[in-house]
Amino acid sequence: MDNILRIDMGAPGGPKATMEPVGAYAGLGGRGLTSVLVSKEVDPLCHPLSAANKLVMSPGLLTGTAATTSGRISVGCKSPLTGGIKESNAGGQAGQVMARLGYAAVILEGKPLNDDLHVILINKDGVHFSVDNSLRMLGNYATVDKLRVQYGEKVAYMTIGQAGEMKLGAASIACTDRELHPTRHCGRGGPGAVMGAKGVKAIILDEAGTTLRAAKDPVAFKAAGKVFADGIKKHAVSGQALPAYGTNVLTNILNEAGGYPTNNFKTGQFAGASKISGEAQAALEVKRGGSATHGCHRGCIIQCSGIFNDEHGNYVTKQPEYETVWSHGGHCGIDDLDVIARLDRLDDDFGLDTIETGVAIGVAMEGGLLPFGDGAGAIRVLEEVGKGTPLGRIIGSGAGIVGKCFGVERVPVVKNQALPAYDPRAVKGIGVTYATSTMGADHTAGYAIATNILKVGGFVDPLKTEGQVDLSRNLQIATAAVDATGMCLFIAFPVLDQPETFQSLVDLLNAFYGLSLTGDSVVALGKTILSAERDFNTRAGFTAVDDRLPRFFEQEPVAPHQVTFEIKGEELDKLYNW
Amino acid sequence: MDNILRIDMGAPGGPKATMEPVGAYAGLGGRGLTSVLVSKEVDPLCHPLSAANKLVMSPGLLTGTAATTSGRISVGCKSPLTGGIKESNAGGQAGQVMARLGYAAVILEGKPLNDDLHVILINKDGVHFSVDNSLRMLGNYATVDKLRVQYGEKVAYMTIGQAGEMKLGAASIACTDRELHPTRHCGRGGPGAVMGAKGVKAIILDEAGTTLRAAKDPVAFKAAGKVFADGIKKHAVSGQALPAYGTNVLTNILNEAGGYPTNNFKTGQFAGASKISGEAQAALEVKRGGSATHGCHRGCIIQCSGIFNDEHGNYVTKQPEYETVWSHGGHCGIDDLDVIARLDRLDDDFGLDTIETGVAIGVAMEGGLLPFGDGAGAIRVLEEVGKGTPLGRIIGSGAGIVGKCFGVERVPVVKNQALPAYDPRAVKGIGVTYATSTMGADHTAGYAIATNILKVGGFVDPLKTEGQVDLSRNLQIATAAVDATGMCLFIAFPVLDQPETFQSLVDLLNAFYGLSLTGDSVVALGKTILSAERDFNTRAGFTAVDDRLPRFFEQEPVAPHQVTFEIKGEELDKLYNW
Repeated sequence: MDNILRIDMGAPGGPKATMEPVGAYAGLGGRGLTSVLVSKEVDPLCHPLSAANKLVMSPGLLTGTAATTSGRISVGCKSPLTGGIKESNAGGQAGQVMARLGYAAVILEGKPLNDDLHVILINKDGVHFSVDNSLRMLGNYATVDKLRVQYGEKVAYMTIGQAGEMKLGAASIACTDRELHPTRHCGRGGPGAVMGAKGVKAIILDEAGTTLRAAKDPVAFKAAGKVFADGIKKHAVSGQALPAYGTNVLTNILNEAGGYPTNNFKTGQFAGASKISGEAQAALEVKRGGSATHGCHRGCIIQCSGIFNDEHGNYVTKQPEYETVWSHGGHCGIDDLDVIARLDRLDDDFGLDTIETGVAIGVAMEGGLLPFGDGAGAIRVLEEVGKGTPLGRIIGSGAGIVGKCFGVERVPVVKNQALPAYDPRAVKGIGVTYATSTMGADHTAGYAIATNILKVGGFVDPLKTEGQVDLSRNLQIATAAVDATGMCLFIAFPVLDQPETFQSLVDLLNAFYGLSLTGDSVVALGKTILSAERDFNTRAGFTAVDDRLPRFFEQEPVAPHQVTFEIKGEELDKLYNW
Repeated sequence: MDNILRIDMGAPGGPKATMEPVGAYAGLGGRGLTSVLVSKEVDPLCHPLSAANKLVMSPGLLTGTAATTSGRISVGCKSPLTGGIKESNAGGQAGQVMARLGYAAVILEGKPLNDDLHVILINKDGVHFSVDNSLRMLGNYATVDKLRVQYGEKVAYMTIGQAGEMKLGAASIACTDRELHPTRHCGRGGPGAVMGAKGVKAIILDEAGTTLRAAKDPVAFKAAGKVFADGIKKHAVSGQALPAYGTNVLTNILNEAGGYPTNNFKTGQFAGASKISGEAQAALEVKRGGSATHGCHRGCIIQCSGIFNDEHGNYVTKQPEYETVWSHGGHCGIDDLDVIARLDRLDDDFGLDTIETGVAIGVAMEGGLLPFGDGAGAIRVLEEVGKGTPLGRIIGSGAGIVGKCFGVERVPVVKNQALPAYDPRAVKGIGVTYATSTMGADHTAGYAIATNILKVGGFVDPLKTEGQVDLSRNLQIATAAVDATGMCLFIAFPVLDQPETFQSLVDLLNAFYGLSLTGDSVVALGKTILSAERDFNTRAGFTAVDDRLPRFFEQEPVAPHQVTFEIKGEELDKLYNW
């Protein structure tokens, strides 16, 4: 990962690739590299769809190595959804291949000269561009099916669906998994729209002729890797709950805690929760010949995913994540796993962030477009995105736009990005993260659920205001650093609880790069990343006002605890005090 | 105008009116009252459609008196379009009647308990509420036609159309003119959506039993009024051009100057300009038995409006304004006055800001929805608003939302409000106003066209950067004060050029209220208003970044002068230095 590949989509005569040494960005990877680069190189006042925006794709520092669960790829840009900086990361195979090809980052720059759809092949020999307008307005599944005939099975695909081509705010970038399903999405904040604006339909990453990245100290690296893997396996969350039930294990837990947002955040418990829980989902998957335990990329030992088949045993989609099940389920009052799986499939196919899209549909329900609980209606509405109709464009633009077009007051967004699957009134730590994250409302940015609900990394009472800002701050700093390593965020459970697992992560980095990082170095890296992001957002016009939840969370108590979000603005403003 | 009428639409048991003395708001009127009140009483972080927003309607200080052209009514609120403070004013009869009824302001507060559509009658005996759901999704014309059967011809109607009921960002509030046509709109920034969110379809103002407001010094008032009226009549713009051709006299002038934005601001001259010019329009109106000279309210001596009939001599709409002709005309590449008049009629009927809506259609053209120049298509698209379809909701939400839904980079908005009919690159003074106005892009906020193009109030070269910030600042201050008087802004032409006309305006205020204001007092009033507005916006999260034009105006030179908008941000930031 010594090089950066810059691709100018607006070069006279057609796209042009230039390779340069990683230079000043050395030592950064994943979110560290995307955020520092975007903050430095992108005009914060540019239009996100303009030539001045850059789409930066970067594997993590440990991606493409033998370290387990290290396959994440980060994508960064100025967000079409929030107008601020964006980093969105995904699993799948793309990160590992890009890293093995030696690229610390691949950057799409400029603006294409016409409306052609480009396909970019990157392999050990370099970069090859082609135009393929036969892919126009194809979904991700059809796109990959078409491309695999030409490019084969042993490559990783990064593609956009119809939403990305239409440059909508909820558009994702799909990364294929081991089975070449386009199910792993850099979803949040609309990076797919930026890829669409660059005129790129697909990036094909071919690792043929490359090898695993080699550590500077292979012996120490292997030893640290074993401690690290053992730590993941022995923790109850990463070693048992996630492999058995996936992230959807959270449905029953959050519903029990009264923090499961239902019918567009009207109440904190959903009568149909058990029907769409991880337990019910896993049983159904197994019964239908799918699987409840599956990894999204090579080398993952958590295996939190699964395969969801229909009643005839035919593949529908990967196991929908907790947030997806929630956004299309409880948030919309829908308690049918088959409906939810179909919606997940459509999201993946059209290239849409499942959180943003589900929340958008629920806001449309509040606006009277269809009733809460109408599963068939939700599918019908979502299908409009694939057709490119006006309604589809509204839904695909995210919850904020749906709120505007349907005159809805209760729109659960921060920085115009939809809130995920945890009610901030009943789980106040995550509310702090939603409010203050540079990303807009984002649970992964500082997953306070761990400590508020799962009692990982200690316990902070979710219903109390005390300690939540400190909790969120520490988690946001740690997360930014983890997002730079390429590690799956689920390693955070053992890392937070088990000091030796945390140390083994530091040891992995030191052994690989010949460094002598400490815990403090990790914290410093996290702060560097957050500061770069926040600085971009400030220059883009964000103020303390943007670090607030919508007013209704402060005013409407949520059942069953009858609580509001009462952490004051001046407390939230302390988050970045360091 | 000694009282404020507050109407709580959310009171238990139904709407409740309370009268209170004008109190601390004494001495304010029109925009002065709406902006100071909104800034003081409305939570800048509230959702514009929520109970916490207030819709403040206020006649000007001289409205309802014998002073000529003083019939404006201001409406203020937190804008659903910009998220900042909003004042939008209109002619028609409503302002005069409200003033004669003794109200310095009528304020809609709270949030209705259900979806009922309310009709509010205000007369000398007080306030009467009724529910009339038979008006649901009727246009303004049909609404007034239905209401006049019950309430008669001798009242003023303020109504919302379908756009307001749907709470869309471009929704206006219509005020009837002397013929009871709902053609005078508080258009900009979505006040109709706030009225819709308050559950109010119509306000009926009945002046029966009231008289003209009496001056403290009737003799001096009459004398000043004569000087003032003489000044208006003798100035070339207000005394000749506007009566003869209306505001559309500007089409040929701006086109000649290369500042006529064409095809979504791609060039500064329109080949079809002469076909839709004020000269052509006036001739057509007269030929068809309409009129090219018509006043929108009692007591106007400028008579800038007209009556536009179809080829059979049947009424279509009032004479479309220059900005309307432009937004639906040159901006969309349409050179057919009949198409433009039909679009104007639909805007008035649905209750839409004509600038925002025309610009929205042009942005949709850029996004590929229909080709530039497609008049029949533009009518078809606009009709969707009346039907409440998804496409109609997109268009009715304004140019910014259209840009998001159709993936358009070149979206001419500031603070999410569409730019009016003057290219800021070729007429830089108006560009400063667009960028810095508290209202979002708004030509009326500081009409630099006067001095840049019409050479009223001196001359500042439109193509040079020098002097534009000072020009815009002075105009914005003066305009805020004029908007507080209830005077039509077109008095500014003689007021700027003729010192005795300016003095007579001050004399009118002094004679009416028994004051001894000076020119400095007027400036101080303007500053007070702008400061209150800017303070609200700052608390709502606006920064210097919001005081900028979209980047493409700095980057794309516009023909024929091949100029960009190159006034620097730090210069724009000096606008509020006083």
